[in-house]
Amino acid sequence: MTAARRNGPALTRAIMETTLELGQELGYAKLSIEAIAARAGVGKHTIYRRWSSKGTLLLDSLLSLSESTLDYPHTEDVVADLRRQIYEAIDLLAGPSFRPLFQALVGEAQHDPGVAAALNERFITPQADKTVARLRAAQAEGRLSPDFDLDLSMALLSGPLYFQLLITQEPLTHAYVDRVLDALFAGMAKRA
Amino acid sequence: MTAARRNGPALTRAIMETTLELGQELGYAKLSIEAIAARAGVGKHTIYRRWSSKGTLLLDSLLSLSESTLDYPHTEDVVADLRRQIYEAIDLLAGPSFRPLFQALVGEAQHDPGVAAALNERFITPQADKTVARLRAAQAEGRLSPDFDLDLSMALLSGPLYFQLLITQEPLTHAYVDRVLDALFAGMAKRA
Repeated sequence: MTAARRNGPALTRAIMETTLELGQELGYAKLSIEAIAARAGVGKHTIYRRWSSKGTLLLDSLLSLSESTLDYPHTEDVVADLRRQIYEAIDLLAGPSFRPLFQALVGEAQHDPGVAAALNERFITPQADKTVARLRAAQAEGRLSPDFDLDLSMALLSGPLYFQLLITQEPLTHAYVDRVLDALFAGMAKRA
Repeated sequence: MTAARRNGPALTRAIMETTLELGQELGYAKLSIEAIAARAGVGKHTIYRRWSSKGTLLLDSLLSLSESTLDYPHTEDVVADLRRQIYEAIDLLAGPSFRPLFQALVGEAQHDPGVAAALNERFITPQADKTVARLRAAQAEGRLSPDFDLDLSMALLSGPLYFQLLITQEPLTHAYVDRVLDALFAGMAKRA
């Protein structure tokens, strides 16, 4: 099937698959809309009609890999639900296949306001909203401290993961996520 | 006093002051060892003998601004001690004067392993060691949960700040630090 014959969704999917494939081959710095267009067999304007920059395209391509769209499960065990969603997110973005691309994207967000805005609009804000909603439900069910500062949930839960990803740059493992969740739920204060 | 007449410490200080001044004028991307050398009136080899890259030089220059070398106070109130040190750190690195330079430095650490190594060796690891020592003492004094996972202290305390600095890129205020400390000490779990 030639590019011209592919319909909208199939074309979008083909462009995103090509982006991930070429991103892994070339690295973020050398990745370009032109190269993606050539490999996917489409005109670059076809890509620019959908995405304003390679950062936005890469972000959508990475997120398209999640079957659950990184939604939280909702069972009786809120810690288990958080754990399951966070495992999925780090396997996707901080695993060996895509970690370098995701790190480079966040690196670019430090000097390109367009990439920073895309990162927040397409990924961080929707995830933060889902996290607050999941924890608000847990509060309503009496499974979370009624005093917990919901607006901080995303920063508290994912901050220590970004610290490991971007600052110490050590492996981001399920065991590390478990330790973070244990520490956050237990709290640092001494109990009477 | 000409550059040639300045002794070691005065020369080091002059180079670091020039780095900060020029960094603020030009931004990180355009800052170069050559430009710093020219402005400071020294040969660039004089700089390269002390620092291997502009990232390392900038980091040392930023840290030289802290009179306390970001040590923790040690009073009977561990939360107040943490708060005081964290306020100082964010005022320095995330205030209006130097935040863009520090953000750019962390951005560069995402694709330059030398900058990432310098960031960890010169700043993160020493700070993490101080944080663990301060919290270990608090544990010994019975002022912190005996179960708290000390090795996570730096990630838990500073992760939410880096999240704000690098991801949402919103202002990093004392009020935000207070909320993070409150939430970390209280914990997310519902108490019996």
